Amino acid sequence: MTRDDCLEADLQDPLAGHRQQFVVPDRVLYLDGNSLGALPRATSAAVTRVIELEWGAQLIRAWNDAGWMDAPRRVGTKIAKLIGALPHEVLCADSTSVNLFKVLATALRLQAERPQVSMRDRRVILSERSNFPTDLYIAQGLADWLGGNYEIRLVEFGEVTAAIDDSVAVVMLTHVNYRTGAKHSLTPLTYRAQEAGSLIVWDLAHSAGAVPVDLSAARADFAVGCGYKYLNGGPGAPAFLYVADRHQKAIADLRFGQPLTGWMGHRAPFDFLPGYEPARGIDRYGVGTPSILALTALECGVDTLLAAGMDAVRAKSVRLTELFMRLIEERCAGHGLELVTPRDASYRGSQVSLAFENAWPVMQALIARGVIGDYRESREGPGILRFGFAPLYLRFVDVWDAVEALRDVLATRAWDRPEFLPRKRVT
Amino acid sequence: MTRDDCLEADLQDPLAGHRQQFVVPDRVLYLDGNSLGALPRATSAAVTRVIELEWGAQLIRAWNDAGWMDAPRRVGTKIAKLIGALPHEVLCADSTSVNLFKVLATALRLQAERPQVSMRDRRVILSERSNFPTDLYIAQGLADWLGGNYEIRLVEFGEVTAAIDDSVAVVMLTHVNYRTGAKHSLTPLTYRAQEAGSLIVWDLAHSAGAVPVDLSAARADFAVGCGYKYLNGGPGAPAFLYVADRHQKAIADLRFGQPLTGWMGHRAPFDFLPGYEPARGIDRYGVGTPSILALTALECGVDTLLAAGMDAVRAKSVRLTELFMRLIEERCAGHGLELVTPRDASYRGSQVSLAFENAWPVMQALIARGVIGDYRESREGPGILRFGFAPLYLRFVDVWDAVEALRDVLATRAWDRPEFLPRKRVT
Repeated sequence: MTRDDCLEADLQDPLAGHRQQFVVPDRVLYLDGNSLGALPRATSAAVTRVIELEWGAQLIRAWNDAGWMDAPRRVGTKIAKLIGALPHEVLCADSTSVNLFKVLATALRLQAERPQVSMRDRRVILSERSNFPTDLYIAQGLADWLGGNYEIRLVEFGEVTAAIDDSVAVVMLTHVNYRTGAKHSLTPLTYRAQEAGSLIVWDLAHSAGAVPVDLSAARADFAVGCGYKYLNGGPGAPAFLYVADRHQKAIADLRFGQPLTGWMGHRAPFDFLPGYEPARGIDRYGVGTPSILALTALECGVDTLLAAGMDAVRAKSVRLTELFMRLIEERCAGHGLELVTPRDASYRGSQVSLAFENAWPVMQALIARGVIGDYRESREGPGILRFGFAPLYLRFVDVWDAVEALRDVLATRAWDRPEFLPRKRVT
Repeated sequence: MTRDDCLEADLQDPLAGHRQQFVVPDRVLYLDGNSLGALPRATSAAVTRVIELEWGAQLIRAWNDAGWMDAPRRVGTKIAKLIGALPHEVLCADSTSVNLFKVLATALRLQAERPQVSMRDRRVILSERSNFPTDLYIAQGLADWLGGNYEIRLVEFGEVTAAIDDSVAVVMLTHVNYRTGAKHSLTPLTYRAQEAGSLIVWDLAHSAGAVPVDLSAARADFAVGCGYKYLNGGPGAPAFLYVADRHQKAIADLRFGQPLTGWMGHRAPFDFLPGYEPARGIDRYGVGTPSILALTALECGVDTLLAAGMDAVRAKSVRLTELFMRLIEERCAGHGLELVTPRDASYRGSQVSLAFENAWPVMQALIARGVIGDYRESREGPGILRFGFAPLYLRFVDVWDAVEALRDVLATRAWDRPEFLPRKRVT
């Protein structure tokens, strides 16, 4: 395997042409698209058009005339195509954390409303100890505010299936782990949860736009996901939520099917009625007025994935991560890097994580050379070097060059300098 | 009073120069800045800069290097100056509805945690029947999810003071009514609520940027407000929330002082700890990752108010609304328009509302002529023509011309045409 082989792979890459849809800065190898996706070329002009020609020129009339009112559903419908959902099952709104609050609350209420006592009395929210922390925090906050009757039970990644028993009201999992890149099996876990009488909430933050997801085939219950990672929606982009059609029907008669009952989730917000009456279907999960600038940028990001197709994205993702792992093994051997991401592609997302004693200064030395990944704390043992692979704008030769940079940093101990000393950075 | 008098008033207007800071479309008289503020000239370039030079060029590093992490507090500090708050008492986040959910929940918990039984047992959330509906909906949703132990008691605008008794946990009011423009007396009502052992939550949606507010002088407890009306932050701009310093201290030891315990409200979000531990102070009210594009636009809007100063804005607002009322009385008499906004400036915000039997088609006819106000349903009686007066970009001559347009529409019955037939529009 040589650098020329990588250049040749880029020449043969069916997605190669998609890179030009993005702004990729010179002298940067960007392996952090799993944290903040790169800027699509279309975004700046689209946002400017909304600001100047819609907000500036049409003013309030743009809510109707420019389609602003439809944006949460319109972008939701596009995301639905990426995650195997029906158009009316996905809404863009709020942040991932706020959306998780909504759907987790619905799931708990659905359980509590079931006629069978054996269902109602389930008091466990089962999740992973290594789940993305905001998911755990939201569950903790919700459980507290629901009166402390719920227990949040945390197990390790591989112990989830065995931990699903008849005490579990809701299983809450992130499909692809943010730290290790390990991917749960969506369909079997969904089936197992439902077979045990639980409902399941999937966080697709590291899967939407990164791996093909088919929520319909999995018969998933609820899901949320993030707009600013692989969906390239920009910093703090609106998030999305998914509620299976059958659950939308099941809560249609519940006035307060989720707690954040704002006017955008009312059946007739502009009738200005004093009493809350939920909108039909997914629209009831709207709360406040959505940011049209942020939704515009998100739509541009989602369009980059739709143009490529998730199967092509996944095929290249597997090849990029495979190449990275192989080159790490071949060219960085002997330095004590430990691969924490599954070697089998069917068990990983689109990132590769390496545990290393000096992970913090190594990442700082890489960033100083323009190789941008990130660092994540580990609960035990050494910290983690995290590299994300966004197939729409990453080349095979970028993988080669990134590994060479890492090899050089390790071989020369370039990380062992005062300016790279361990300290917390903000992100 | 003549049109020339209005032109002369514009020549003498100390705020006249601020109009050029906004994009004001030709052939439009925009009297709906209370629904969506006009576009500041600085916004488009500022958002483009963030997109291209920060997101595009700096990528993930911009969270630190471009100050994105600080944006919710930085913009909050600016808004604090407009509402008489301390810098650490205001945070930009989420929507008004979501923020109301957070602070109303905190207020209820503070009451429930009080040592005196007489405080703990208060079960009433007191509000106005004519409050902006999303506020009522949020209270209804929260009350339901807290177990149905709370009663939401709704009274008329003028009955609030008398209705505050020792059953009331929280008084929740909007400072300036969205429909009538009537303004509550912030300080006396705050005092009355606290004297009775209640806490008070103020919604400043129609006052921030419209009228001077001094939350510190009023010793207010909690507040929320909107970014896209008089603050000119753009469609669906982030909202803000205010928590008085003394309450921040009171909940410092409460782990779940508000229910939406997302990672941005954690004391150390990038330590990725599995357990939620609140940040100190106002930061605990952050939830998910904030939209940087939306915050950038909001900051440009807030800057337009800071540049003018709220006293100057209010002085002109009073003159504009007074002029409008006077011209309506002088030049539109005999058509049956009914002024529903208080004639005494100290009891109104920056809008004027007129009840009229054919309000809907009249507003459509006005909009067709480029005079943009809006229509609001009335609970009883005729619908309402609503006109907002944003002093930074409205001229006295605009008021004259708008009244003349209304006079002509009424005198010629220009509204009585099939295309203006009553029907619901979306906004």
